[in-house]
Amino acid sequence: MKEFNKHTSRKFNEELESVRNSVLKMGGLVEEMLTQALHGFFQGDSQACTNVIAMDDHVNDLELEIDDECRRILATRAPAAIDLRLIMAIIKTITDIERMGDEAEKIARLSINLLESSEINKADHLEIQAMGELVQTMTKKSLDAFARFDSELALSTFRSDEMVDSQYKTLSRSSITHMMEDPRSITKRLNIMWIARALERIGDHSKNICEYVIYTEKGLDIRHAEDLEG
Amino acid sequence: MKEFNKHTSRKFNEELESVRNSVLKMGGLVEEMLTQALHGFFQGDSQACTNVIAMDDHVNDLELEIDDECRRILATRAPAAIDLRLIMAIIKTITDIERMGDEAEKIARLSINLLESSEINKADHLEIQAMGELVQTMTKKSLDAFARFDSELALSTFRSDEMVDSQYKTLSRSSITHMMEDPRSITKRLNIMWIARALERIGDHSKNICEYVIYTEKGLDIRHAEDLEG
Repeated sequence: MKEFNKHTSRKFNEELESVRNSVLKMGGLVEEMLTQALHGFFQGDSQACTNVIAMDDHVNDLELEIDDECRRILATRAPAAIDLRLIMAIIKTITDIERMGDEAEKIARLSINLLESSEINKADHLEIQAMGELVQTMTKKSLDAFARFDSELALSTFRSDEMVDSQYKTLSRSSITHMMEDPRSITKRLNIMWIARALERIGDHSKNICEYVIYTEKGLDIRHAEDLEG
Repeated sequence: MKEFNKHTSRKFNEELESVRNSVLKMGGLVEEMLTQALHGFFQGDSQACTNVIAMDDHVNDLELEIDDECRRILATRAPAAIDLRLIMAIIKTITDIERMGDEAEKIARLSINLLESSEINKADHLEIQAMGELVQTMTKKSLDAFARFDSELALSTFRSDEMVDSQYKTLSRSSITHMMEDPRSITKRLNIMWIARALERIGDHSKNICEYVIYTEKGLDIRHAEDLEG
């Protein structure tokens, strides 16, 4: 929990705690959206996909609420040092979480397209499966790192984005080969590629959240520090 | 210019003015990146594309600088009301401008791929041209709206994103038809689709900037207010 809960004002402690809990709630919702969207894709469950689309409104509402709450804290508490870094990290984190929700919604919509128009087979599933699991883990870990402000977990999670990118590149290349071999599969292949693309972007957003955690905890900005990604 | 420059502290006025100027400088750089990337694509000028890739570092540096400056203002000035909304809008705006830079860089890289591997013809150019011009205009207008804090310009620019989305959908559909008719063109077609995709995302980021302008000027949050998009 670091030093956030050490204010003489009990009310300020409660406010910080409350806004952090809202971020975790928002993150939990997006995790659930991703799980349901992938379940929808793998199990051909269009109801699960429809649920995901509906959940996105709730995520959007939470973003606006948390944004307001941060503005109120900045205006009334004039936080400094680590508290200020925390609020700035929250303002940025919720933008990323909201966009993760958009990508999960995209996966749900693409899965519905696929269910309506193509036969998805075991081989198609396998392509997405490894990447889906990796991105789910990354999402969970980045939110855990945020919850505990654990910058070591954040750094290791940040680094695993490289693996997601590499899986995405492999999948793109193999999709292109499949499309050339069987042009009738182009529409299906593109939908699968776009699902992979949405997963890759969720990985990017998780990576961003990890950066904010490190920045908050250490006061160290690792954005655009490419050497850390190696 | 609204009410930003009415503080009794001349120093505070200067600080706000300076951070806004940095945002405009960052925006100007990204506009130039987009112009150069599209020039590279249309004219087959790989040097222009290479320049774009190099410019992205500068944009990233500016993001970190402005972020620091905003944190310093929050910590030392404890701004309230419209000044606080301005700082919050800047913190969000620079994230979008930075990602617009990433997308422009992507267009430059994809153009280099295309120049190296395919013959681009007049018809390929035409597909991107209308969308490219629209997105360039949108980018310029969203940054102008930010510069002048003109929420009317922001609202009309916000609405033009719909046209970008519709152009992107048309281009995607026609690309799929082309790929099916001529599977040898798949790689080229995908590169062109991805350029269109990057343009579509730049449009989204411009739209986000317009939202922040409206939020700052009117204190009205139009994010996720889908009825405004109609």
